Amino acid sequence: MELLKQKILNEGEVYEGNILKVDCFLNHQIDCAFMREIGKEFHRLYKDEGINKVLTIEASGIAIGTVVAQELGCPLVFAKKTKTKNIAGDVYTTPVESFTHGTTYNIMVSKRFLGKGDRVLIVDDFLAVGNALKGLIKLVEDSGAELVGCGTVIEKGYQHGGDALREQGIRVESLAIVESMNHETGEVVFRNDK
Amino acid sequence: MELLKQKILNEGEVYEGNILKVDCFLNHQIDCAFMREIGKEFHRLYKDEGINKVLTIEASGIAIGTVVAQELGCPLVFAKKTKTKNIAGDVYTTPVESFTHGTTYNIMVSKRFLGKGDRVLIVDDFLAVGNALKGLIKLVEDSGAELVGCGTVIEKGYQHGGDALREQGIRVESLAIVESMNHETGEVVFRNDK
Repeated sequence: MELLKQKILNEGEVYEGNILKVDCFLNHQIDCAFMREIGKEFHRLYKDEGINKVLTIEASGIAIGTVVAQELGCPLVFAKKTKTKNIAGDVYTTPVESFTHGTTYNIMVSKRFLGKGDRVLIVDDFLAVGNALKGLIKLVEDSGAELVGCGTVIEKGYQHGGDALREQGIRVESLAIVESMNHETGEVVFRNDK
Repeated sequence: MELLKQKILNEGEVYEGNILKVDCFLNHQIDCAFMREIGKEFHRLYKDEGINKVLTIEASGIAIGTVVAQELGCPLVFAKKTKTKNIAGDVYTTPVESFTHGTTYNIMVSKRFLGKGDRVLIVDDFLAVGNALKGLIKLVEDSGAELVGCGTVIEKGYQHGGDALREQGIRVESLAIVESMNHETGEVVFRNDK
């Protein structure tokens, strides 16, 4: 998605340790006009797939999930990271290792909101080693729903989480795939467009 | 907002301990078509106030913040609950006591995304005792930005957090104010419409 690549080049910042900071438009401050374009692009990619549910994970996936679900005309479900008093009854749950934070947490979705007959698109802001997506895919499988595919805004291609999922036959669409970054020059190289 | 009240009556569930469960459309599964109506209603209430930033708190405020910011044509900023590696530099921060979970956590917003010259609308899904709103208001004050008002989807009127803020002269608009609930009958009584 050309608009996204330009936005990464113009507004993103590269830090040591392969950190790409895009919190000015994607995951702390959110550029909502731009978000709508993100939603439209995922709609273009997945509109013919009969998706009836978008699944994401709190927190930074929720804005993206909201605009994608709006465009696809279906509900969004977001997996929660901790068990709160207000989730009653049965849930699907699985552990997820956080590459960013070096911790493991549980994610969960109420059984009322995911199940047989659902055709699910999973979305998230970033795809690196793919642990969050793998956890969400596990919840979809456990629920008996059908996974249509995954959509992420920025994939860090050099961490190969997306490629590993594609090798398993899962459709993974990322709107920009970063192949390499240089924190000294600020250069960002994208994988070739399809 | 009549549509919201009907939705609470039709889809909400009342549990012992004054718990109103609306996770089928508001804060776990999200009805995105309905969310757009929420966004339009806050736009109607605040469109003449020159708002240039919507502020909310992760996680369940983000979907509402996204649709409100879309309607108002400005960015959304969401306060984070824990310090992550990817928040660099200076932040505004304040402790918030969670009434629901019985814990205290810190919320923070990067100083790059809130400051003098900003006219801010704070939004959230629920308003009960008002601790989350008070924390967000503190961040706005600390930043030198101007608070235009607050907008919450469901206010629990009997917990008086909204009334306390209104007594301080803060504009607080809630789309439905629950005055009382009965978990045995499932009855929900709303404060009279304006």
